[in-house]
Amino acid sequence: MTFRPERSLTILGIPGSLRHGSFNRALLEAGEELTPPGTTLTVYDHLEEVPLFNQDFEDVAPGGVTRLRNAIRQADALLIATPEYNQSVPGVLKNAIDWLSRSDPTDGIAGKPVAVIGATTGPWGTRLAQTQLRHILVSCQALVLSNPTLYVRNARTVFDQSGLLIDEETKSLLRNVVRALADWTRLMSPSAQIEVPTRTD
Amino acid sequence: MTFRPERSLTILGIPGSLRHGSFNRALLEAGEELTPPGTTLTVYDHLEEVPLFNQDFEDVAPGGVTRLRNAIRQADALLIATPEYNQSVPGVLKNAIDWLSRSDPTDGIAGKPVAVIGATTGPWGTRLAQTQLRHILVSCQALVLSNPTLYVRNARTVFDQSGLLIDEETKSLLRNVVRALADWTRLMSPSAQIEVPTRTD
Amino acid sequence: MTFRPERSLTILGIPGSLRHGSFNRALLEAGEELTPPGTTLTVYDHLEEVPLFNQDFEDVAPGGVTRLRNAIRQADALLIATPEYNQSVPGVLKNAIDWLSRSDPTDGIAGKPVAVIGATTGPWGTRLAQTQLRHILVSCQALVLSNPTLYVRNARTVFDQSGLLIDEETKSLLRNVVRALADWTRLMSPSAQIEVPTRTD
Amino acid sequence: MTFRPERSLTILGIPGSLRHGSFNRALLEAGEELTPPGTTLTVYDHLEEVPLFNQDFEDVAPGGVTRLRNAIRQADALLIATPEYNQSVPGVLKNAIDWLSRSDPTDGIAGKPVAVIGATTGPWGTRLAQTQLRHILVSCQALVLSNPTLYVRNARTVFDQSGLLIDEETKSLLRNVVRALADWTRLMSPSAQIEVPTRTD
Repeated sequence: MTFRPERSLTILGIPGSLRHGSFNRALLEAGEELTPPGTTLTVYDHLEEVPLFNQDFEDVAPGGVTRLRNAIRQADALLIATPEYNQSVPGVLKNAIDWLSRSDPTDGIAGKPVAVIGATTGPWGTRLAQTQLRHILVSCQALVLSNPTLYVRNARTVFDQSGLLIDEETKSLLRNVVRALADWTRLMSPSAQIEVPTRTD
Repeated sequence: MTFRPERSLTILGIPGSLRHGSFNRALLEAGEELTPPGTTLTVYDHLEEVPLFNQDFEDVAPGGVTRLRNAIRQADALLIATPEYNQSVPGVLKNAIDWLSRSDPTDGIAGKPVAVIGATTGPWGTRLAQTQLRHILVSCQALVLSNPTLYVRNARTVFDQSGLLIDEETKSLLRNVVRALADWTRLMSPSAQIEVPTRTD
Repeated sequence: MTFRPERSLTILGIPGSLRHGSFNRALLEAGEELTPPGTTLTVYDHLEEVPLFNQDFEDVAPGGVTRLRNAIRQADALLIATPEYNQSVPGVLKNAIDWLSRSDPTDGIAGKPVAVIGATTGPWGTRLAQTQLRHILVSCQALVLSNPTLYVRNARTVFDQSGLLIDEETKSLLRNVVRALADWTRLMSPSAQIEVPTRTD
Repeated sequence: MTFRPERSLTILGIPGSLRHGSFNRALLEAGEELTPPGTTLTVYDHLEEVPLFNQDFEDVAPGGVTRLRNAIRQADALLIATPEYNQSVPGVLKNAIDWLSRSDPTDGIAGKPVAVIGATTGPWGTRLAQTQLRHILVSCQALVLSNPTLYVRNARTVFDQSGLLIDEETKSLLRNVVRALADWTRLMSPSAQIEVPTRTD
């Protein structure tokens, strides 16, 4: 394997909610600061551009779908943060996956390393939504990380008013998920020749 | 209970796919001819007007959502025909439910009798999608009919080229589902005083 | 409907765990004191007598299965309290259901009104186990109550050392579930001619 | 990595049914002849020795549990063939997993590569049982192979009267699953230093 110190691993964070003050987007933004060396996390915040899926038009994907596909193609891995709507995955998020699953297998989420997390203001931590989302992603042939997991409950006590993650335990768990996703991505993509720069701290 | 022969039971059929030649819409259209006396089934074909759900705007529902809510309010029961996308419910359908579940409880799907069916061109009959959809509807406090069920597989052999349901066994099963939904609706809605006209055939 | 004041509605409580100090058994025992007038709840505590299901022997059911079937036949409804093992239903409980589902349809859980509750010492309230259990019961054609629900978390703070339910909110929710199950049972079983004695308190 | 030609990869096949003529056992037995070079598959046929799980006795596991644990410890990977009972995993199989998940993490199914397949005489291919089983195994931190999958339907036309797998397409799919599981096991267990002998045919 050729050593390519300039090549870092890139993770695309996708929040499953369109809400302006979404805790799931806030969770991903917190993750941007918690990546291991050689890894960057960027939040994709344009799911509202992805129209309702209609199989009649799958071959002429609208611009919002193309933009999402391009962002996913350029990423080494995905980190999806999902709310729980009606004990399942938000329609908005599932709709985006429906578009992605119909694309060229080399151009969607098949074969892509993915981790799932989620946050809710309630007590139950989005466990039902995350369970269903992992099932959906596996059916799309994504390479879904199983462990560790992160189920954020009582989000209003975990984030401050401005949406900053202030709970240290959650930060620690999130850091673990991001690191595990990076390791998982390298394990799953030996041909990607992704290198980690030597840690100097 | 006052006898009101003019009052028939109305079922709103909702296809979970936007595709023009959708087998699920065709299945519901076939159901229009298979209702028991005193029951009508009408297909709602405007899910493409329901925009992506955004909690920031839930109190100012767009026109497509209002139209769907009105149609549901005026119906005594729902019959949802779902395709299976990525082993789960289409995002388009889930997105509509996400809107409905946020409405005034007297104005959505809470308390509404619902049956779920589904069709696919493949061999597996949309069982995973139907299972997840029933779970979602129960979580919304809809009154979900459990039996009988209808899992249409190999749709291309069950419908003809024009989308007409030609398989007699499927017709019979569909007739049973519609009749059971009508019975279920009357059982669940004693206060609705829905009467069946005397059968004369 | 003939008034039969001597006939009360009977609910059989089934804990899904064999553990001596099971919080799920304790939850059902607490329920015995919280029934509405005309309703009794009795805990069935013999699931350890139900051997591993083997289809070869389904027609010569062992004594433990016969005892369970008899208890269920004599009950008007079931209240199942399930722990969550590995994010699903305990094998012990599923195994009992596997026996029951193979019996004569007039002699198992098909057509039987059932409510599901659950308790755990952890934070997640057995939601994944309950979801799967409801799905299993619906597939067996049980008449599953959808609402209200009861997800007991942090069981060690909800029960005292002796297994007594001491949390007032949980008591209130449990009372609601039992009352709703009684109402549901009467709605589902009009032919059962179950009467409620006049309340005199 | 030291070349150890004598070390082949061993897969333990576990049928989820106790029935004597189980198609799932037959499927695993067919798999014994379909392994790639350097891989052996052996069927474990003693699940009837695993008693009902009782947390009170988890630290003094009965002999049947110890035998199963030993067999799993000695295997590099598991191939589980599950029937579908009541649209979910058989209680017998879930009960065995409940025991295994409580063992020392170095001694159960946590960290073990696993693939899931299943057969049924009906049309639906055990898809609901397999989906739930994968979820359960992931929650136990097993390393679950996602693809390829094998859903055997209409088992009576796929096996002959003696239980021999006679359908060539099913054989081919099964061969693919076993090969993928072998590859997955090597990918997941780099430290195991498992070597494939040079193929000479």
